[in-house]
Amino acid sequence: MKLNIREFTTQSEGFLAEFEALLAWDSVSDVTVQESVANIVTQVRKKGDQAVIEFTNRFDRRDVSAASELEISREEMAAAKLRVSDELVASLEAAAKRVNDYHEHQKQPSWQYQESNGTILGQKVTPLDRVGVYVPGGKAAYPSSVLMNVMPAKVAGVSEIIMVVPTPDGVVNDIVLAAAYIAGVDRVFTIGGAQAVAALAYGTETIPKVDKIVGPGNIFVATAKRMVFGAVGIDMIAGPSEILVVCDGKTNSDWIAMDLFSQAEHDEDAQSILISPDLDFIKAVKASMERLIETQSRNAIIQVSLENRGAFVHVKDMDEAMDIANIVAAEHLELSVDEPEKWAQKIRHAGAIFMGRHTPEALGDYCAGPNHVLPTSGTARFSSPLGVYDFQKRSSLINCSPQGASDLAKIASPLARGESLEAHAMSAEYRILADAVSAEKSAQEAKGE
Amino acid sequence: MKLNIREFTTQSEGFLAEFEALLAWDSVSDVTVQESVANIVTQVRKKGDQAVIEFTNRFDRRDVSAASELEISREEMAAAKLRVSDELVASLEAAAKRVNDYHEHQKQPSWQYQESNGTILGQKVTPLDRVGVYVPGGKAAYPSSVLMNVMPAKVAGVSEIIMVVPTPDGVVNDIVLAAAYIAGVDRVFTIGGAQAVAALAYGTETIPKVDKIVGPGNIFVATAKRMVFGAVGIDMIAGPSEILVVCDGKTNSDWIAMDLFSQAEHDEDAQSILISPDLDFIKAVKASMERLIETQSRNAIIQVSLENRGAFVHVKDMDEAMDIANIVAAEHLELSVDEPEKWAQKIRHAGAIFMGRHTPEALGDYCAGPNHVLPTSGTARFSSPLGVYDFQKRSSLINCSPQGASDLAKIASPLARGESLEAHAMSAEYRILADAVSAEKSAQEAKGE
Repeated sequence: MKLNIREFTTQSEGFLAEFEALLAWDSVSDVTVQESVANIVTQVRKKGDQAVIEFTNRFDRRDVSAASELEISREEMAAAKLRVSDELVASLEAAAKRVNDYHEHQKQPSWQYQESNGTILGQKVTPLDRVGVYVPGGKAAYPSSVLMNVMPAKVAGVSEIIMVVPTPDGVVNDIVLAAAYIAGVDRVFTIGGAQAVAALAYGTETIPKVDKIVGPGNIFVATAKRMVFGAVGIDMIAGPSEILVVCDGKTNSDWIAMDLFSQAEHDEDAQSILISPDLDFIKAVKASMERLIETQSRNAIIQVSLENRGAFVHVKDMDEAMDIANIVAAEHLELSVDEPEKWAQKIRHAGAIFMGRHTPEALGDYCAGPNHVLPTSGTARFSSPLGVYDFQKRSSLINCSPQGASDLAKIASPLARGESLEAHAMSAEYRILADAVSAEKSAQEAKGE
Repeated sequence: MKLNIREFTTQSEGFLAEFEALLAWDSVSDVTVQESVANIVTQVRKKGDQAVIEFTNRFDRRDVSAASELEISREEMAAAKLRVSDELVASLEAAAKRVNDYHEHQKQPSWQYQESNGTILGQKVTPLDRVGVYVPGGKAAYPSSVLMNVMPAKVAGVSEIIMVVPTPDGVVNDIVLAAAYIAGVDRVFTIGGAQAVAALAYGTETIPKVDKIVGPGNIFVATAKRMVFGAVGIDMIAGPSEILVVCDGKTNSDWIAMDLFSQAEHDEDAQSILISPDLDFIKAVKASMERLIETQSRNAIIQVSLENRGAFVHVKDMDEAMDIANIVAAEHLELSVDEPEKWAQKIRHAGAIFMGRHTPEALGDYCAGPNHVLPTSGTARFSSPLGVYDFQKRSSLINCSPQGASDLAKIASPLARGESLEAHAMSAEYRILADAVSAEKSAQEAKGE
């Protein structure tokens, strides 16, 4: 099947502007969606369970009469796991263990240090009390996302994890429940959309209020998350998924074609880009793609996303490839090259770096260990993969000794007065030690000042 | 002067609901402000410098004709520093050094580890390339905020720091410029409001596009920050400042009164709350406040904020005080008690904990070392003080050995097929080693399976 994929060469005039136009992604904020979500949030805040039941019955075509019917117990999760094949359960357990092990490296200890005058400064790290994990229902219900969102919270030490997952027409996804069971989710409610986000943010009679909501969702979920931000924490709002493959031309072209497909098959807005200094290789990958797409069950989605948002970029050398990778700041960056360690050092911005010919993104998506929730649309310039950090917070510790307070007060007082904040100055000055003042005075007198 | 400050006792019915109503703070999102900001952002994005000049001339009553006039050079910052008193410069330098030293403890190294089959996993930590720091102009121009926002970025290794500060009527604040010089700000532009935020987010011919914008601002600035979030990173949107003092009754009541004033003097929405198990002490603090308020130049603001949002809470014991402190999740928590280390262990949520009778908040505001940009309005339940972390980001590293890839692919493949993502499965399966398959087969045969 012929594929019309954009081809760029960095040598052509206007390359960068055209390329950046292809990268650009503006998330649409539809007024209708905004209003609809605002109404749902208000209703749930006001009427609690009753509103959640009404919206759930309406949007998910269900027939719930009591909020208790919305909960799935740990026993039911365990039962769902028994209905999943042994091979899949083993894979879920192996993946959960690997994700757990990687994230253990992210745990941050509290620390403190003492200054010579006895003052102690430090930082106390504590887990969040309660976290909500949103899991989309229907076709995009990904058990791997359950693991990736829940495991870092568990590692961080979050006491209670509440999962919400819509079950349109009452259809429950056993693999998702098995993943929830394995990951250690405490409670599951079969609700979704803006009503689920609102219920988690403000609490209802049945659904507990959480401190942070994480997990992917459609435009209603994303809009609701933005709206409740402040009342609770939220994770980043993800754009479409993207992969940037840099290949020196020496990897099997079928492998690279499939790596590009594995991103393109997500949805029609997904973005797959190949950069190579080897034009013949780009042609070979294109030929592989045109042959292999015939074998793909999701070929229609793959074709649209490649033709709308995909690209081949011919660069003059690997150094230029790294420059472009830093401009893209890709969610997934695959360095399918010799000496990937050397080239990775030149990368300043990327969500995750997949190094070498044997590291396709798909391994990271499921089980390598690092998180698959990554910054999209160039936001890797300023944000990071989901991690244990997102489920802990820090409190600064300041414990001044009398002498330490006295010393600091003499620095603080002029600064406070420079800002015309007199009470700040006086509050500090109260802590200046009388004998220290005398001591200083005596010292000055001793020096004949 | 009589002060009408709310008095609570935890023993009274309905205490918690009333107390939580006092804590509640909903940031108003005014439609007029929204529209005005949206227009400014659009204009700056479209017309660049020209729009920035127009809005600056209009809102700050200036007469700028070329964008270059908006920049203040490092030489001019140095000159401003010379106009500031030696005492103040010395205090700024001492504070900058202490803030730097504390934040050095927050630097996170990159790390990686190797698995037995040769696969390497890790995390690469890199600084942001370029950061914008917003500094309010006029009365609320706080040099201490310049230090607190810039120093963590410097410690993180940010290459370029751009500061914006409006100068209404062309009036420049020398202390702010001196702080910028000392902190190591690279470039300063005298612009403010939504136009400054938009210029930093999207860049103009003169003002460089940054990766993240931090710093406090009025409702226009906060609204603009929310609007450009995604194009750039932003820090948290702060609510009014608050202090919660827990005192066992043994601290000088004048000291506690002044500590409460030091928060109340910020603005009329600021919140100062005292919790104590000692009712006589609460009365003594109130008497101190009524006497000391007469001495305060900002007494009008102090009175309004105490009467609108302040409170005394009488608790039955220190354990109950800790429970309430965890409900408040205060920006500033002062433990003016014996054995503050013991009680701090019971605190799960607080921006900063000021421990002992000699640690008033004012010392932390200026020079103790920890950051004074802290989570407000109960958001300490899920967020943290500004720190080096906010100016770095992480990239996951995955470098599979051929054997490692082959092992992982066997876990990933069933998971991908369970999610109906065939290209993911095939991309993984390509990396399964043929000889490994044979090896496994031989092993099974050897075992007689």
